[in-house]
Order: sequence, then C-alpha cells, then structure tokens
Amino acid sequence: MTELPLATAHSIIYVLDMIGVFACTVAATVLAKRCNMDMFGAWIVSLIGSVGGGTLRDLLLNRHPIFWLHDLNYLYVILLVSTLVQIFYHTVERLDRAMRWFDALGLAAFTVIGVQAAVSFHMSPPIVMLMGAFTAMIGGVLRDIICQQIPLVFQKEIYTTASVLGSAYYLLLLHWGVSEWLNSLSTLVLIFSIRMLAVYRGWNLPNLTLPKKP
Amino acid sequence: MTELPLATAHSIIYVLDMIGVFACTVAATVLAKRCNMDMFGAWIVSLIGSVGGGTLRDLLLNRHPIFWLHDLNYLYVILLVSTLVQIFYHTVERLDRAMRWFDALGLAAFTVIGVQAAVSFHMSPPIVMLMGAFTAMIGGVLRDIICQQIPLVFQKEIYTTASVLGSAYYLLLLHWGVSEWLNSLSTLVLIFSIRMLAVYRGWNLPNLTLPKKP
Amino acid sequence: MTELPLATAHSIIYVLDMIGVFACTVAATVLAKRCNMDMFGAWIVSLIGSVGGGTLRDLLLNRHPIFWLHDLNYLYVILLVSTLVQIFYHTVERLDRAMRWFDALGLAAFTVIGVQAAVSFHMSPPIVMLMGAFTAMIGGVLRDIICQQIPLVFQKEIYTTASVLGSAYYLLLLHWGVSEWLNSLSTLVLIFSIRMLAVYRGWNLPNLTLPKKP
Repeated sequence: MTELPLATAHSIIYVLDMIGVFACTVAATVLAKRCNMDMFGAWIVSLIGSVGGGTLRDLLLNRHPIFWLHDLNYLYVILLVSTLVQIFYHTVERLDRAMRWFDALGLAAFTVIGVQAAVSFHMSPPIVMLMGAFTAMIGGVLRDIICQQIPLVFQKEIYTTASVLGSAYYLLLLHWGVSEWLNSLSTLVLIFSIRMLAVYRGWNLPNLTLPKKP
Repeated sequence: MTELPLATAHSIIYVLDMIGVFACTVAATVLAKRCNMDMFGAWIVSLIGSVGGGTLRDLLLNRHPIFWLHDLNYLYVILLVSTLVQIFYHTVERLDRAMRWFDALGLAAFTVIGVQAAVSFHMSPPIVMLMGAFTAMIGGVLRDIICQQIPLVFQKEIYTTASVLGSAYYLLLLHWGVSEWLNSLSTLVLIFSIRMLAVYRGWNLPNLTLPKKP
Repeated sequence: MTELPLATAHSIIYVLDMIGVFACTVAATVLAKRCNMDMFGAWIVSLIGSVGGGTLRDLLLNRHPIFWLHDLNYLYVILLVSTLVQIFYHTVERLDRAMRWFDALGLAAFTVIGVQAAVSFHMSPPIVMLMGAFTAMIGGVLRDIICQQIPLVFQKEIYTTASVLGSAYYLLLLHWGVSEWLNSLSTLVLIFSIRMLAVYRGWNLPNLTLPKKP
C-alpha cells in the first residue's frame, strides 16, 4: 500500500476544518439575525460558535497558544462568511438542507482535530473521546445559550453520538498501529456517514427512561 | 488527643466529594430530562453540573492538569449515576427530599476541596473563600443556564452563605494552627449543619433594599 | 512637548478601570435585583459582570495570575458598591442617565487595558482589537446570560464599535512611535467620545441585510 504523505492528510483535515468553521459561522449568523443582533453581535456569536469548542478544549488541556490566536485564517474566514451571510440573509435562510452537508463535514473535522490534540497530550481514551465531542459541539452550545435556546445538540439527533463513535474507532485503529493518515481520513468518512444517515433516516437516541407505573 | 492520620481525612473528603458528584449528577439529570434532552445531553449536562465549579477554579488558579482529566472516577460516577437516573427517572423524581441531604454533603465537600486548593496556591483569604464558593456552586449555575433557568443558588436559601461561613471558619482554624484533618472535618460538619438547618427552618438571607419612599 | 510620566498615565487608567468596575457593578446589581436574586447572587453577578471580560482575556492569553486574584481592590470595590446599590436600589434605579457616563468611561478604560495586555503578549493587530473588545463587553454578556436576557451589546448601539475603533487608533499610534502615555490617554478620550456621541445621537450600526425580493 502506497503511503499517503502525512502532510497531505493534515492539509485535507485543515480544509475540512475550515469547512466546519464555514458551516458553524453560517448557522451562528442565521441564529444571530433571528435574535435581532447587529453586525458586531453576529460576528462575535459566529466566532464563539465556530471556535468555542476548540477553545474550551485547549483551555482544559492547558494547550497554548489557543489555536486561533496565532492562525488568523480562522478569524478571517469567520468575518468574511458572517458578513456575506448577513448581506444575503434572505437567500441563505432557504438553504437549510445544503447546510447539513457542510455541518456534518465540520462535525467530522472538529472531532478528528480534538481527538488528535488530546492524544498528543497523552489523555486516557475516555477523555480523548470527550475532547473530540467537546471540540465538535461546545461552540454550538454556547451559541444557543447566547441566543436563549436550549442547546439543539442536547435534545435530538445522532450528533454527539457520531462524534463519540468516530473517536472510539480512531483510538482502536491507533492502538492497532494503523498509520495516522489512513486513521484520520477513515474516521472523517465514518463520522460524516453516521451523521448524514442519521439526518436522512431520522435516527434518534433511544429514551432510557422506564415507563411510569400506572 | 490521638492524631487521626491525614490520609484518613483525605479519604473521607474524597468519599464526600463523590457523594457531591452523585448529588449534582442526579439534580442535573432530572433537570435535563425536564428540558427534553436525550441521553448524551443528560450526560454532558451532568458532567458540567458536577465538575464545572472545580474546573473554573482550576482554570482561574492555573492549576493543571484539571482534576477530572486524570482521575477518571469522576467521569465514571457521572456516567453511571446519570444513566441510572435516566432509567428510573419517574422514581427518582419523587425523592426530592432525600436529595437535599446528599446535596448538602456535596456542598460541604466541594467547599473544603476548593478552599484547600486555593490555600495551597497561596491565595489571600477573600479569594480562598470565593474559590470555595465557586467550586460548590458554579456547576449548578452552568447547569441552570444551559436549561434556561435563572440560577437557583442566586435566588434563595442559605447555600453560598453556608459555603462562605465554612471557608471563614477553616481559615481561622488554619491561622490558629489546628491540624488539617480536624480542621477539614469540622468544616465539613459546620457547612452541612448550616445548610440543613437553613433547609428545615426555611432560612433566607435578609433583603438589604430600603423600602420605596411613598 | 513635556513628557507626562508613564506612571501617571497608568494611574489615570487604573482610576478609570475602577470607574468601569463601579459602572459594571451598578448595572449588574440592578439587573440582579430585577431577577429577584438575593445578596450573594447580586455579589456574584456583579463580580462576573465586572471582571468576566478581563478574566476571559487572561485565560485566552495564558496570562497568570488572573488580575483580580492578586489585586484585591477589584473585589472590595465590587462588594462595597453592590451592597450600597442593593440598599439604595429604589434611588439608583432612577439614575439610568448618569450611569451612561460611567459606563462609557469603563468601556474606554477596559478597552485600553485589554489592548495593552494583548500587545505585551505580542498578539497580531486583529487579535489585539478582539482582546480589547472582549475585555470591555464579555462581562456584560455573561451577566445578561445569567439573567436570561439576550446580551444587550449584541443588539444595538455603537458599543463594541467604539471599542474596536479605539483599538485600531491605539495600534496606529503605537506603530508611529507615539509615546505610550499620550497614546493611552487619547485612545481613552476617543472611545469615550464615540460612545457618548452614539448615545446622544442615537447612532446605530447599519443593517447589512439586502431587502427580501418580492
């Protein structure tokens, strides 16, 4: 099997990371407009919604500098995309369906990046899976809290589940010594697939609660 | 007076800490179910509600690694208890009264742990008291915010007050050179007693506001 | 031109910083009373509203110790002012207009302090401007979230804008080699002026959104 250079795998993850930032920014800006926020409000909520999860992960792991403080591409993508979404708001609002594809790409990329960061800090498997999930979902949670909504990801759909299953798969392949590029990319595909299947099949988590006794 | 080994005092505090985590997890899971959260949502809210206060304390003090990243017992207790509460939700919902005892034990344990952490980082007395209170109450505040409630601890009952009085007592005994095990355990008893008395006597803080002039 | 000692400029900024803390505490306490919080609740919300922005900035920059852990004046001013506002609540409630002057002074001081902190950590210009804005506004955002309000600063008025314009001006003068005391003080005046003009002229940001097609 020919070795794909690790650098190429990293480039692919970086591009998908930016797609995730793009998706988070669109979602955050649409929500901000619905809450009657102004230009700066939409920018800040987009920033929090896009990099909030990774920031919490870096703070918890004591991983400095925080990634977006030194790589300004995050900030530029967020400002540009949020501004465009504000201008073409009435058009973007109707693209809800298309956004789910980008959102699922972001979920996959954010999880892999979070998992890699936690692994490089020698965290135990349960914490690695948690850091992957945090990276992928805390931004959306903060965004929903600011806009006075009970966080969407806590209420329905296989979202965190896809992230956690992907992290477990990544750790398993890492344990088996599979090369990193293959591991990262197949994890990306797995998370994306689970998420999109869940969306189109309407999968939900089972409710654990026993029925009330009569 | 026979010296109780410090290790024993630490074990007692650790057990009470887990009881606090247990109480926080039950409260958070019940609230999460009321907000129609799914399994993962309830787990994450339980995690935030249980270790959120200690995490903020550790971040502020720059005390790494964050305690629950390396001691996985916290995560395991939270996942186990939250899952059980979700299954037996209709039964647990009726045990509100019993929970107050566990909750008060948690308040006491969390405060003592927060105070000890701040003292070991050479903080001044006002900051030590604040760190004790933060450890005990910020988790509940974050939990309430996520579930769209004005934080309960800010609105009524002698809760933070019990924590702060206990911290002041701890610092006084520390200043007088009382041995740590006796100091810790008597502080635990004091906070627990104040809290339970407040619950059963319906104590509230006085309202400072002067009446409106006619 | 006679050199104003840098120490004097720092003293002026420190005094204005405390005025900002004063303004934030008054605003937070009034909001806390409206949410039926008790004494401790009002104190904690005042603390979060006053130093929350600077704390997030310090955590992001990994700048320890967090400023208010070692300079207890912040805590004392907050406790004192919040207690007084609680006592004289019905009088303070009517002073809404006067508060805007203090609030604008705080906005200016918080921004300059945040900008100086980020510059001393060698951050790039966009991050410096963001840190100035975060320092000035995140406290108010957290306060509004706790009290179940969509953050005011995200919704209207030239608030963050004044902060960002001031930061850009500061960076420009820094680049030109203007001495720090002159730079800091003129930035303070600029931010304060923009904010007060915005308040009295009713300036708002333009809405970027294109009109809906018929």
